[in-house]
Amino acid sequence: MSKYAEKTVAELEQEYRAVVAEFESSKAKNLKLNMARGKPSKQQLDAVSDLLEVVASSDECDIDGVDIRNYGELSGLNCAREYWADVLDCKPQQVFLGGTSSLNLMFDVISRAYSHGLSCSTRPWSQEDTVKFLCPSPGYDRHFLVTEFFGAELITVPMTDNGPDMNIIEELVKDPQVKGIWCVPKYSNPDGIIYSDETIRRFANLKPAAPDFAIMWDNAYCVHEFDGEYVPFPDIISLCEAAGRPDMVYEFASTSKITFAGSGISAMASSEKNIAYFTKLFAVQMISHDKVNQLRHVRYLQNKEHTLKIMKKHASYLKPKFDIVAKILEQEIKPLGFAHWNQPKGGYFVSFNTMPHTAGRALELCKEAGVVMTPAGATFPYGKDPQDCNIRIAPSFPTVDELKQAMEIFCTCIKLAALEKLLGI
Amino acid sequence: MSKYAEKTVAELEQEYRAVVAEFESSKAKNLKLNMARGKPSKQQLDAVSDLLEVVASSDECDIDGVDIRNYGELSGLNCAREYWADVLDCKPQQVFLGGTSSLNLMFDVISRAYSHGLSCSTRPWSQEDTVKFLCPSPGYDRHFLVTEFFGAELITVPMTDNGPDMNIIEELVKDPQVKGIWCVPKYSNPDGIIYSDETIRRFANLKPAAPDFAIMWDNAYCVHEFDGEYVPFPDIISLCEAAGRPDMVYEFASTSKITFAGSGISAMASSEKNIAYFTKLFAVQMISHDKVNQLRHVRYLQNKEHTLKIMKKHASYLKPKFDIVAKILEQEIKPLGFAHWNQPKGGYFVSFNTMPHTAGRALELCKEAGVVMTPAGATFPYGKDPQDCNIRIAPSFPTVDELKQAMEIFCTCIKLAALEKLLGI
Repeated sequence: MSKYAEKTVAELEQEYRAVVAEFESSKAKNLKLNMARGKPSKQQLDAVSDLLEVVASSDECDIDGVDIRNYGELSGLNCAREYWADVLDCKPQQVFLGGTSSLNLMFDVISRAYSHGLSCSTRPWSQEDTVKFLCPSPGYDRHFLVTEFFGAELITVPMTDNGPDMNIIEELVKDPQVKGIWCVPKYSNPDGIIYSDETIRRFANLKPAAPDFAIMWDNAYCVHEFDGEYVPFPDIISLCEAAGRPDMVYEFASTSKITFAGSGISAMASSEKNIAYFTKLFAVQMISHDKVNQLRHVRYLQNKEHTLKIMKKHASYLKPKFDIVAKILEQEIKPLGFAHWNQPKGGYFVSFNTMPHTAGRALELCKEAGVVMTPAGATFPYGKDPQDCNIRIAPSFPTVDELKQAMEIFCTCIKLAALEKLLGI
Repeated sequence: MSKYAEKTVAELEQEYRAVVAEFESSKAKNLKLNMARGKPSKQQLDAVSDLLEVVASSDECDIDGVDIRNYGELSGLNCAREYWADVLDCKPQQVFLGGTSSLNLMFDVISRAYSHGLSCSTRPWSQEDTVKFLCPSPGYDRHFLVTEFFGAELITVPMTDNGPDMNIIEELVKDPQVKGIWCVPKYSNPDGIIYSDETIRRFANLKPAAPDFAIMWDNAYCVHEFDGEYVPFPDIISLCEAAGRPDMVYEFASTSKITFAGSGISAMASSEKNIAYFTKLFAVQMISHDKVNQLRHVRYLQNKEHTLKIMKKHASYLKPKFDIVAKILEQEIKPLGFAHWNQPKGGYFVSFNTMPHTAGRALELCKEAGVVMTPAGATFPYGKDPQDCNIRIAPSFPTVDELKQAMEIFCTCIKLAALEKLLGI
């Protein structure tokens, strides 16, 4: 094998015929494989299913004089606020417990910013001529969609190896219509980048023109190492406080990829002023979130230290899968010289960059061969990747055997789309 | 004892001195009693705590090929949709499962009507000059607050013994700015009225000028009889469909007062068109609600018939409490001739109407004597009862002994406030 760029047309045509044959034989297998979403596997879920046995009788339902089965405690059980404060390295009074979904908490923050404004807003965002929102890309499609849903103009910010490009961000926030930014600061979705200390420091020291600029700090993978030890991470809330803009950041986390996806507990952490402001707003829609599930989780996960032990179980299932992805890409694609990808040590994704203007076609071919992937472009605002090259690989859900098959087919389709492009087919 | 209206001033003054003495002796006891909110009691919660043991191992987590611990099934597990369809007498495909709170579902409907419009809207409600919302009163403060939160003008509609005054409603809906109405159709909060068949028929046959008029049909007490047998109730969704406005009604229910308050499951039921519309909107904020809790509830509650058996347990705790309220009011207040109240057979409240312009003062006195009640006025839009006479009594939470004490003090305060008024003190 040699780089496609160094091949003659005749060699490319020969390669094309071989790859088409591979593709047709894959298709003939009529497989149904899915690498579309960052879903935990059955083995991972089984490994944490002891959670179901925690809090199993009425005797266990009183905690500090609160009956967890009844209404009340809108901001969450004290022990649950303490749990998240331990995990996120902030203070319990800076934590608000949500329901099962941190995405829903983020949505509610943006929705309320739109209808009523944030604690530092001079008016609701719906009353602004334009609201612009910064979207480091590749990024998480569901984030971008929330701000698009409320009519914000999405501005793409490029990623670097240290996180979003801070030089560009520091310029953009001088525009008072720029109201916020989406961040996945640890094992960014999909690049798997850990923001550098320097990047985080510059975030905390941002001086945006908008008084209600919101850093949406989605710490979705805060304890989600699958390769190597836990990487300590600075607390953005105290850094923003130290820099004089304590109300600028909203941090989010959940146990969706610690316990059960969709049946976990979520949290928002921010300045006490913001938590008080939102507790008042949330009181209009909620009496209290699920405290039985909060206690179940606190009893099961205990604290950060014990949570990290549980994350080792997940790692034992995840690492072999990421290794397969790395190995197959190394063998099949690397020698061809037209693509590059990351090798993350945590999170749920591999961010794969193929030959420009071939990602959409490659995923069309994948679909034809029975492999479902996140749609091409999904990692960019409005679902449009200007280079049409980024593909998010989510290897967690399939079994090892399925994953091997899916990755082989994926590589075939990547090659085929590239060859079609090079040959003008 | 005789009616206050028939007493001489001297007799009233004598009564006043006696009641003040009663009040002072109550106050000296330094009690802390709470009749403010419709919270289930510890005994009720204990009676349904077997719920905690249902779905206790990973073997039980697969239902019809869906792993309840993973992401997916945004509109809810099929078995959960079937459960609610059975309870509400509608079709499973007309049901969307929410999280723990039906209030949050109602909030989301109004919030999305405001930001994006309903399925039949010509524009979002935020783009309308005025949005008016009908509030049958006395009613539920949290309902009124949701529409107030989004800037709607709240219009009070009087209640009759058969439900809201339909003559008035049929006139009001001719105004295209009138966008909806809040209803608690069975055991209305707080009056405990079951809307008559005639009222329900007229609701279904409303022809509002607004194409996106929304009947917010909060069937919070759909199976909540505590005195006598289950009262069958017409399905508003099929009635609206038959009347030619299938998308006009949004029905809500939850298990907050069937299993655990705040850790139950909730549902919205509406036309399939509305459910499809909202499933698309909800996909922006949620991946899926808590399916473990959905299955836990379906396994525990089984169906409507079995749910009604469980409601008999609640009734065994609730009826004695409502009997105490009725008995003490009968003894202490009835002979005085200035107040009236309902005697519901279901729901969570007694709606008490005291001498006009004395409710606020009476509750101030209650607070002074250590009895916390729902604030006076709460049952009316903007928290303002024009007659200052309606008080919502919530007897479910205190123990029988606490309730007796609280009701004695309540009666003393009611009398004292009335005497102050009559004597111009």
